[in-house]
Amino acid sequence: MKLTQDQVEQFHREGYIFMPEAFTPEEVTLMREAALDIFRTPRPEIWMEKSGVPRTAFACHTYNPVFRTLAAHPRLVEPVEQIFGERCYVHQFKVNAKSAFSGDVWQWHQDFVTWHNDDGMPEPRAMNISVFLDDVLPINGPLMLVPRSQGSGAIEAGHDTTTTAYPLWTLDDRTVAELVEQGGIVAPTGKAGGLLMFHGNLVHGSAGNITPYPRKIVYLTLSAVSNAITRPTRPEWIAHRDFTPLQALADDALLAHRAAPVAAE
Amino acid sequence: MKLTQDQVEQFHREGYIFMPEAFTPEEVTLMREAALDIFRTPRPEIWMEKSGVPRTAFACHTYNPVFRTLAAHPRLVEPVEQIFGERCYVHQFKVNAKSAFSGDVWQWHQDFVTWHNDDGMPEPRAMNISVFLDDVLPINGPLMLVPRSQGSGAIEAGHDTTTTAYPLWTLDDRTVAELVEQGGIVAPTGKAGGLLMFHGNLVHGSAGNITPYPRKIVYLTLSAVSNAITRPTRPEWIAHRDFTPLQALADDALLAHRAAPVAAE
Repeated sequence: MKLTQDQVEQFHREGYIFMPEAFTPEEVTLMREAALDIFRTPRPEIWMEKSGVPRTAFACHTYNPVFRTLAAHPRLVEPVEQIFGERCYVHQFKVNAKSAFSGDVWQWHQDFVTWHNDDGMPEPRAMNISVFLDDVLPINGPLMLVPRSQGSGAIEAGHDTTTTAYPLWTLDDRTVAELVEQGGIVAPTGKAGGLLMFHGNLVHGSAGNITPYPRKIVYLTLSAVSNAITRPTRPEWIAHRDFTPLQALADDALLAHRAAPVAAE
Repeated sequence: MKLTQDQVEQFHREGYIFMPEAFTPEEVTLMREAALDIFRTPRPEIWMEKSGVPRTAFACHTYNPVFRTLAAHPRLVEPVEQIFGERCYVHQFKVNAKSAFSGDVWQWHQDFVTWHNDDGMPEPRAMNISVFLDDVLPINGPLMLVPRSQGSGAIEAGHDTTTTAYPLWTLDDRTVAELVEQGGIVAPTGKAGGLLMFHGNLVHGSAGNITPYPRKIVYLTLSAVSNAITRPTRPEWIAHRDFTPLQALADDALLAHRAAPVAAE
């Protein structure tokens, strides 16, 4: 899938591109069922909310065939290759659950700060990608982005190890207020199947979810191959060491995971 | 102000009525400045968020002249008299701050359960009223209502004294999920000056606010005079004992609080 010139310009100016319903309901069903399967089986790479329900399943593309296919899907890989002008690899891959009733907050932050400080990623030549597995509503804790904030580069941040379940380099209120004054806040919402791509320096966060509507998304990062990490300190399943370039699959690759029809007796 | 027949029917069917921009920007400015004044001066009736910023100022209509006027404003008092067919008094009056960056969650609950259990209010013949002092956005923790849930009457609830700053009789997830299945969720949003009225048995809650946009509202309860509380256990500034019927003021009563013009020298 190729981005239009308008989409490329929007990415460079605003820091994000949103493509509603980029995946079909059938593809979404396959991925949602894969996610539910994954969350049913405890593993060290599956982290929990404070309430005890699953929050994040890291690296599930390494053991789940549906998500292995998604990581190399042409609707993800080709736009990223187009933006960075080279091939890319999977730096991180996770499913975030943002559970019904108890989905936790993620404070305002940039991702590249973490990739740089904790993993030794040289440049913000890596793309954050979110694929909606449930309908994302204004009321179930959508990702909120501060458009154009990527233009500020890496902003000084404090290491928050308490208010979220995951250590984050978070921004202070004054900095966020200034960036929002300039760029506002957008919260892309829409049906399951939506596809959001945003810059590694784009400031983002999400509120908690107290509704009965879960808000699962796949959240992965594809890095330019020339930008591979150099000083990893986090586990391999959080910051991957396999820098093999992704080979984009066929556009209908996910559908190969449909259950084989039961043979007629 | 009289409600239309449609509004009365919507209240009895859906459990709420929303009137966008019921107060003018000039009236809102007077009220917002009064609220900021109140939050600047600590008092025992002003409660704090976990983060230490002001969350709720109870009973401020008893000492602030702008809010004393609001409590008897005809846009509040006349619709409530119309719905209950009798005069009303102030059962509770507060300003809720839902601060920028750190506004806390309010779990799903009904208010009448508390009025009945803690205050001895006989019937749900009391109206919850919210007046927006800031723009209420989908992303800054709007009140979320479950339409038609008032039809279930008072629902069994547990006393939550930990997850919010204020003890609440909150509903379990399964009950909320069933009610939402039937009625959905609405989150009335709009400019400062909006006016929301809802039934004492309507299930409602609100998520946290991590945006730089504060979401201050006035949140008061006007009870039918015949429905005065009988066994108060909470402080007088949370559940009032003054059952004097409100006498609706003139429609422009708030504007009398404009600062007197400085005399020309």
